[in-house]
Amino acid sequence: MKTRIGVGLIGFGTVGTGVAKVLFENAALIRRRVGVPVELLRIADLDITRDRGVAVPPGVLTTDVKQILADPAIDIVIELVGGYDFAKRVMLDAIAAGKHVVTANKALLALHGEEIFAAAESQHVDLGFEASVGGGIPIIRALTEGLAANRIESIYGIINGTSNYILSRMTREGHSFDAVLKEAQQAGYAEADPTFDVAGIDSAHKLAILANLAFGTPINFKEIYTEGITNITEQDIAYAREFGYTIKLLGIAKLHNGAVEARVHPTMVPSDSPIAKVEGVYNAIHLVGDAVGDVILHGRGAGSLPTGSAVVSDVIAIGRNVLKGAAGLVPPASFQQDQRRPIRLKPMDEISSLYYLRFMVLDRPGVLAQIAGELGRCEISISSMLQQGRREGQTVPVVIKTHMAKERDVQKAMCEINRQAFISEPATLIRVEGKDE
Amino acid sequence: MKTRIGVGLIGFGTVGTGVAKVLFENAALIRRRVGVPVELLRIADLDITRDRGVAVPPGVLTTDVKQILADPAIDIVIELVGGYDFAKRVMLDAIAAGKHVVTANKALLALHGEEIFAAAESQHVDLGFEASVGGGIPIIRALTEGLAANRIESIYGIINGTSNYILSRMTREGHSFDAVLKEAQQAGYAEADPTFDVAGIDSAHKLAILANLAFGTPINFKEIYTEGITNITEQDIAYAREFGYTIKLLGIAKLHNGAVEARVHPTMVPSDSPIAKVEGVYNAIHLVGDAVGDVILHGRGAGSLPTGSAVVSDVIAIGRNVLKGAAGLVPPASFQQDQRRPIRLKPMDEISSLYYLRFMVLDRPGVLAQIAGELGRCEISISSMLQQGRREGQTVPVVIKTHMAKERDVQKAMCEINRQAFISEPATLIRVEGKDE
Repeated sequence: MKTRIGVGLIGFGTVGTGVAKVLFENAALIRRRVGVPVELLRIADLDITRDRGVAVPPGVLTTDVKQILADPAIDIVIELVGGYDFAKRVMLDAIAAGKHVVTANKALLALHGEEIFAAAESQHVDLGFEASVGGGIPIIRALTEGLAANRIESIYGIINGTSNYILSRMTREGHSFDAVLKEAQQAGYAEADPTFDVAGIDSAHKLAILANLAFGTPINFKEIYTEGITNITEQDIAYAREFGYTIKLLGIAKLHNGAVEARVHPTMVPSDSPIAKVEGVYNAIHLVGDAVGDVILHGRGAGSLPTGSAVVSDVIAIGRNVLKGAAGLVPPASFQQDQRRPIRLKPMDEISSLYYLRFMVLDRPGVLAQIAGELGRCEISISSMLQQGRREGQTVPVVIKTHMAKERDVQKAMCEINRQAFISEPATLIRVEGKDE
Repeated sequence: MKTRIGVGLIGFGTVGTGVAKVLFENAALIRRRVGVPVELLRIADLDITRDRGVAVPPGVLTTDVKQILADPAIDIVIELVGGYDFAKRVMLDAIAAGKHVVTANKALLALHGEEIFAAAESQHVDLGFEASVGGGIPIIRALTEGLAANRIESIYGIINGTSNYILSRMTREGHSFDAVLKEAQQAGYAEADPTFDVAGIDSAHKLAILANLAFGTPINFKEIYTEGITNITEQDIAYAREFGYTIKLLGIAKLHNGAVEARVHPTMVPSDSPIAKVEGVYNAIHLVGDAVGDVILHGRGAGSLPTGSAVVSDVIAIGRNVLKGAAGLVPPASFQQDQRRPIRLKPMDEISSLYYLRFMVLDRPGVLAQIAGELGRCEISISSMLQQGRREGQTVPVVIKTHMAKERDVQKAMCEINRQAFISEPATLIRVEGKDE
């Protein structure tokens, strides 16, 4: 019988610091849950001199990853270096050395998850990645265990805290994207280069993982339609409010007639829905299963300690397995590796949705009729239309909400309408989730 | 290597029917997740002739529980008979026969959980009870696994769908408790004898389980302060709204200075909080952990299929364990049995809270001063006071919100004030969760 679980941590940044804090400060509690001490034996990072605000016992810090990979006392390797090549090499080397691996690296899993899942499977080691989606929210476990009896029909949610923080402040304060982003960067809520967050790429990484687990199919990350929030204006937020909607950056995955839909884009959601009320850096994920109906999980989507909570929950689960000599109990992809099936990912132009469309037009007679006529020719029917103020000869917005329509038809209509002489700038299109009224 | 997992179901009522539907209809999906077929081999019930709307293969139904307990092909016994004595005997017999057990029986676990946990531990079998709290919401797994890295500070929520349905309708429609209860009974949302639900007993059963897992301590169910919703009036709901609150029946458990607080009572929560917006038969549970911060899980708290989803999630988890010859990986109480510690449960008069107090008084000069004076003498300070209309010589309500106060002091003040001649009926007291402003 093993008398302790040895853990090695690679990457001592924000999340790594949170993990170390949880492992050190809650050591007694974790021991009571696992049965034996779970000891953080080594922490590897290039910079081992900086003070990270956590007391590390002498001899634990190293700059040499091999001291972790080659140490027989280490059962579990936590990879928190981020990025692709080095992180992947570390993970595959750890797996090859028979070590269980825990990671928060959604980008790597979204792109190379299949290879890593297969390596873990073939080496009979566990792979934990609860921290890769939704920070401290136990969403991975909900998919692989808690809701495993269900055929998952859809999963959607707010899975990027930075963009939700920016949209929340734009909505509350009426400021522009650029102004709020600048403040968010100063306050530390957005990175110096915020592209991954505001362009929807981070959400798409996470959605790839969620859809993979939900539907039991490999997802080609590159096929996920991804649109960020950089073009969202105060004006569209205000119009959304008039229609009873709030704009959120959602990751959406659905399974329809044997095909998967997976897309990330700004979305109008009914302002009285739970998702609309998720504010600031919080994340929320809404799942629909055939037996359970709808379930919503809500919590802090990022941050040192919440993400540390998720990493250490994986360490505890694996520690319990190690003590019993069991591994591979819960397949990382929720479905057994040999039971996963390729499912076609629908190209974006095959989806159907409700749409919000804003046209900036020269205010002159007949314009509304021309827009409505073009939409009609493309099989798009209008559920409501808003034109505020009349300023003959000047540019005014025309705002339209459609009934359920096909993306292909809507894009075609946009193209046609954007070519018209009365259009002063390309139309804005925001998809709407909710009931077709 | 086993080529299938055999399941026996005891109790073919509402939840049993849901479990059978999920196991039959999602058999292919469950097989893909577990690796081998999970087969419902036997269903035992006293009534095996009634049509339950689910097609059961011939030979599966039996009236004899022994056909399940003695069948070596059955690995997992699902106990859904409810109640105490017979259910407990079935579970202990199944455990003694080396079978893993899954149950939704919160009443039994709240009263005899320790004995059942210990039996499962000593027989090295798994015990699943995800379905005992929150219907389809994976809250048990969140406590035992997903948030296991955290010292849980508090857990509270709406954990009884019937009483939430009644309160939601009273709030929305302004009707009385009796009127809404009658309608709920006709619509099938409340039992003919609704005592367990509306008196808070069902919530207290579930809270006992949650507090046990959250804090790693046996909870004496009988020590949980339990107050139901039968005395909630339309008037108090309306006053709550004026103060910005919504009345919900909450189960609340907190760990403070080495003592546990566990109580079920109608509670005013800020109307803009997520818990206030949980409507109808939905449940929601709010946890605060030292690392993760706050997490909210929301979903259907009851019903055949949602509860079936939770039961079958346990069957899947145990099935995966059985295939690997592993059991007891996750201790049922989240903490290892020998690592649980008795923690003192605070008597109700030791708690502190904000309070809403409503006095029905004869409207005459000096009454307000007498009430305020008595509260002051008991160390209770008033945060706001409402007296509507003046009807000299008649009975009028005086409504008060307090700052943080001690339950003991508040009860003492109530006693004193209720004795006064100007009081026309005993005062109403509703505890308030939220910020002390």
